[in-house]
Amino acid sequence: MSLISEIHEQPQILQNLFDSQSNEIRKIAEQINAYNPHYVFLAARGTSDNAGRFANYLWGAHNHFPLALATPSLFTFYEQPPHLKDALVVGISQSGMSPDILAVIEEGRRQKSLTLAITNAPNSPLAQAADLHINICAGEEKAVAATKSYTAQLMVIAMLSAGLSANQADWNDLARVATWAQEVLDHPQQLADYAQRYTFMDRCVVLGRGYNYATAFEWALKLKELTYTIAEPYSSADFLHGPVAMVDRNFPVLAVAPQGKIFENILDVIKQLKEKQQAELVVISNNPEALKIANIAIKIPGAVPEWLTPIIAIIPGQLFAYHLTEARGFNSESPRTINKVTRTH
Amino acid sequence: MSLISEIHEQPQILQNLFDSQSNEIRKIAEQINAYNPHYVFLAARGTSDNAGRFANYLWGAHNHFPLALATPSLFTFYEQPPHLKDALVVGISQSGMSPDILAVIEEGRRQKSLTLAITNAPNSPLAQAADLHINICAGEEKAVAATKSYTAQLMVIAMLSAGLSANQADWNDLARVATWAQEVLDHPQQLADYAQRYTFMDRCVVLGRGYNYATAFEWALKLKELTYTIAEPYSSADFLHGPVAMVDRNFPVLAVAPQGKIFENILDVIKQLKEKQQAELVVISNNPEALKIANIAIKIPGAVPEWLTPIIAIIPGQLFAYHLTEARGFNSESPRTINKVTRTH
Repeated sequence: MSLISEIHEQPQILQNLFDSQSNEIRKIAEQINAYNPHYVFLAARGTSDNAGRFANYLWGAHNHFPLALATPSLFTFYEQPPHLKDALVVGISQSGMSPDILAVIEEGRRQKSLTLAITNAPNSPLAQAADLHINICAGEEKAVAATKSYTAQLMVIAMLSAGLSANQADWNDLARVATWAQEVLDHPQQLADYAQRYTFMDRCVVLGRGYNYATAFEWALKLKELTYTIAEPYSSADFLHGPVAMVDRNFPVLAVAPQGKIFENILDVIKQLKEKQQAELVVISNNPEALKIANIAIKIPGAVPEWLTPIIAIIPGQLFAYHLTEARGFNSESPRTINKVTRTH
Repeated sequence: MSLISEIHEQPQILQNLFDSQSNEIRKIAEQINAYNPHYVFLAARGTSDNAGRFANYLWGAHNHFPLALATPSLFTFYEQPPHLKDALVVGISQSGMSPDILAVIEEGRRQKSLTLAITNAPNSPLAQAADLHINICAGEEKAVAATKSYTAQLMVIAMLSAGLSANQADWNDLARVATWAQEVLDHPQQLADYAQRYTFMDRCVVLGRGYNYATAFEWALKLKELTYTIAEPYSSADFLHGPVAMVDRNFPVLAVAPQGKIFENILDVIKQLKEKQQAELVVISNNPEALKIANIAIKIPGAVPEWLTPIIAIIPGQLFAYHLTEARGFNSESPRTINKVTRTH
């Protein structure tokens, strides 16, 4: 039963990260600011890539960094890495073992860019190769489907953002993250019952935008890995550029729509899907209007500021995927076909 | 019948682009080289975003530019655009009308970065706002599903790459693109018959990597827009990090696997899917081994160099989507729900 216990470990891991790594992350932020990168070049795969999507928005909105998501095949197969002058080169990997992510960090060092690894394994090749390393301190992750390492990666990304902007208000918000995570886990809101309704769902789309674009991708990935549902994630804007044509009556649309600057936009999209296309809506939100139009409404705490909602909103998504796995009688500990460490090149 | 006629117009448009725009694009390339960008910041949506994915790999491999795909919501909703110092800011849009892409170009100008618009509409707001404009010269596109504007965008991206590196061998390759496109259209290879087999397919994945990561996305998008199939695109590397768990016996996997540096890698993946998971394979390739293991093999000309395969490989993908639309009795001219110009913010 590692998956469900790792989901429940998250508040404690987030609190421990905040307590034990704040000073270290502030120091790393100072080194990055001294280097003064013009942009961030970030390499990751799978769940870690979804954490990278959060960094894309957060380091953009709070720290004004443009962020290029690396295309590792340029380094490995094409052997034509880009010029990384003035870039901060970041690699994110739970295990620190993926050869393609390592290749990006090594090239960054070769070109004398500043390199940063974010891993759960300080002795891993990736952590050892980078100039700077942040340990996500998630403890050993046994379940094949990553949960606690994901929220710990998001927490590190958020703490680094606060460090880079030296913003005390952000640090005050960060101090409350573990409490909000605990609140979600203390109120499981019939998620086990809700999941029953989707036992025979074979496909769905998952919508999010802005900070929670990452949440849509990660929720969809858990559904694919654990429940074998075809779950395709979209920004609500990209979704209107074509894919919306797939949606007809009762088509399941899962949406991550917390209160914030992006809220009215995503509300418009899900309202349209509900009213015009009679889609079935599962909504994670802390806004009453969004929750009201949902077939299944999943509430998160109202006080979470938008920039930290991805850390909290994914938790009921993880639980939903876990309970759906149970409802289908699949093995949540060892999904077919995949391994814990995927060594892609 | 605009969709099928626009698919067939492509060789002529590609030839015309090469003949009429080479000099203009060489001049624009010189201006970009004089500016000496450290990286490219690119904004696009839908089909144009898939063209951006091609630029990501090609401008990386041939021109050593890191490429950041813009997150327009940072400009529109969050109103926190990144610092774009030393960036070439590129907006791609067929209509040149999308407010969110325009917002990115306007911010680039405000920050005094060099800006480039690639559109099919020289008088559009986007073309007018940018310092530099390249006209894709695709003529009016009437079908809601974009085809000729996509291959014309890829051709412009490839011509600009050749211009930036002032590489005559690349220009010689480019001179042959229209002929290869014609060759594919002259040999429709029973695609209308093949499509019948997938009449009741409700979901599939589409795999590509490197330059043809873009082709996987664009093929999937045509299937979603026109046939309402849940078609999810993946890099073959990302696919192994979790989503592979969805694949069981007869699960349809569409793969774009032309000869080139990435070929052995994608061949390994599709071989595994075939042998271990008994997936159903539809393969677009010019390699006999890849074509041989496919259930449905779609051949493209052997002489196409890897970097130009995306312009050629998407054409049978478009035809496959068109014939599947016909097989299902759907309206290929006006897919439900979507409009030609999508004005997202």
